[in-house]
Amino acid sequence: MIETIQWTDDGVVMIDQTRLPNEEIFITCRTSDEVAHAIRTMVIRGAPAIGVAAAMGIALGMQQPDADIESICDTLSKTRPTAVNLFWAIDRMKKLHRSLAGRSAADMRAALAAEAQQIRLEDIAINRAIGQHGASLVPDHKTVLTHCNAGALATAGYGTALGVIRAAVEQGKQIDVFADETRPFLQGSRLTVWELLHDNIPTTLITDNMAGHFLKSGRIGCVVVGADRIAANGDVANKIGTYSVAVLAKENGVPFYVAAPTSTLDLTLASGDSIPIEERASLEVTHYSGTSVAPRGTVARHPAFDVTPNRYVTAIVTEKGIARAPYEQSLAGMLG
Amino acid sequence: MIETIQWTDDGVVMIDQTRLPNEEIFITCRTSDEVAHAIRTMVIRGAPAIGVAAAMGIALGMQQPDADIESICDTLSKTRPTAVNLFWAIDRMKKLHRSLAGRSAADMRAALAAEAQQIRLEDIAINRAIGQHGASLVPDHKTVLTHCNAGALATAGYGTALGVIRAAVEQGKQIDVFADETRPFLQGSRLTVWELLHDNIPTTLITDNMAGHFLKSGRIGCVVVGADRIAANGDVANKIGTYSVAVLAKENGVPFYVAAPTSTLDLTLASGDSIPIEERASLEVTHYSGTSVAPRGTVARHPAFDVTPNRYVTAIVTEKGIARAPYEQSLAGMLG
Repeated sequence: MIETIQWTDDGVVMIDQTRLPNEEIFITCRTSDEVAHAIRTMVIRGAPAIGVAAAMGIALGMQQPDADIESICDTLSKTRPTAVNLFWAIDRMKKLHRSLAGRSAADMRAALAAEAQQIRLEDIAINRAIGQHGASLVPDHKTVLTHCNAGALATAGYGTALGVIRAAVEQGKQIDVFADETRPFLQGSRLTVWELLHDNIPTTLITDNMAGHFLKSGRIGCVVVGADRIAANGDVANKIGTYSVAVLAKENGVPFYVAAPTSTLDLTLASGDSIPIEERASLEVTHYSGTSVAPRGTVARHPAFDVTPNRYVTAIVTEKGIARAPYEQSLAGMLG
Repeated sequence: MIETIQWTDDGVVMIDQTRLPNEEIFITCRTSDEVAHAIRTMVIRGAPAIGVAAAMGIALGMQQPDADIESICDTLSKTRPTAVNLFWAIDRMKKLHRSLAGRSAADMRAALAAEAQQIRLEDIAINRAIGQHGASLVPDHKTVLTHCNAGALATAGYGTALGVIRAAVEQGKQIDVFADETRPFLQGSRLTVWELLHDNIPTTLITDNMAGHFLKSGRIGCVVVGADRIAANGDVANKIGTYSVAVLAKENGVPFYVAAPTSTLDLTLASGDSIPIEERASLEVTHYSGTSVAPRGTVARHPAFDVTPNRYVTAIVTEKGIARAPYEQSLAGMLG
């Protein structure tokens, strides 16, 4: 299996997710600015993977003499606004840095590098635990619908939503997957289908606008998606289109599950209304691979995320277990 | 304004809708088989336009000595299964042919050619009437959301859903349009945006999976779409993704309007469950402009239409007026 992100002697190595599935190219970031650039340009994406990348970016930047952690963290924190795992990882690295005040520079560097690698390893273990909890929710002999890519590539490995699917398959459940292509960036067709083909899990690609049709057809047993930020009340920010899938699932009596590590919880926000939604370049909507798919002069919008109100969320699966409504209590309990 | 389809001395001339918006190329069909091929390959598409093309295809085929109307109609009837306007036009031409039994071949040819051109002219007049009826439903100072292309290009001219929008603008309403790109064939980005840019109607392109997000935002005053077939109970078959938009509109209290000529009504079907849904090549999902967007070996589904149950349809606008639930009565009344 291909690694999403690794700490090496040469720097932070990532598979370039903008080039998949046609090319499997690895890039090596040698400075924290290069890591920030990789996050901003979606060489690496997915909330947990962004968190790991930020931690490694800080550790990498701090290997330089006279490095300033505030400046490094400031640059990284401005790469993408929605996924809270980015800020969680930055906070964790800053806290460690403060706790090491007075130690030698060499000790500091080693400790930060070790912490970033530890965050990566923890993320894989967390995803395995999410998979174990979530697999019990997946109906046997049915199809699982997923949106975007919440797989190994969105994390340090194994995946959150795809971790649940992988664990269900490992438990012997006879399931197949429908993957929304997830315009405009096509994380579903380019990344999710690619991952599941590697694992020999039967997968069918559909366009986003087919999800409702198949949810109505009765073949979908449940929906499982990841998350970029979850508010205290259980409102979920995730890739644009998630809200639509959630409404269509509820309308058709299909359970809608969100799989995410507790680092995706942002209990400082009472509801999803205050989650910042990134607006990306409209060029990503009007063009594909440099080719225009719309007339010259087209105006396009590109909110990269949407917010699914908690009433559409059947359960939230974290490494600590399964949370159900009322989420104010169940989510607070998980962090408490 | 560019003509969708015209009867000329050289044959039936159509703008090639597979090449828009990057190229404005006209093709001339000189046989009924060439018209059938143009319908099958979506050089011309949109239920009313397909009906006009079929009528012209029959008239064209019958210009040949020894032409057999049954064989010509059989070939045309197998081009696409969902849009009932195709079968409506074939029936109308066959009826005329029967009524001319005993007349000279020259008279027959002239009458069929005149009828096909009459169907084209009627379609434009019908769309103007749909626009007049529908414009009253469009809230002023709000955004209209549309899916796929139910515009001039989907008809002989003016459009059904876009006819409603055009009429609202002509009445002085201050509206703008959000156009779903409509994967996989991108009728929204390639055709709807192109048409509305020509008319200087402010239009914003979004991906299909953004529609729910914007319906929730409150800026959308109504949804207007076309239809490929409407059953006696008001269930509506239309481009894949229409069902999802309808559910999301209802969930957010936004009226959902269907604009179509009465030739789209199929009162022989009690409900939408018996409408045949075309499954097109999966290559149209996995590839864009010949470039693969999914890994080698990807399995994809491609239902080209879905069925929106009548409970999501606020009103159906035809050239005869505005039909509301219960549709069994209101639609039968329109044809009666």
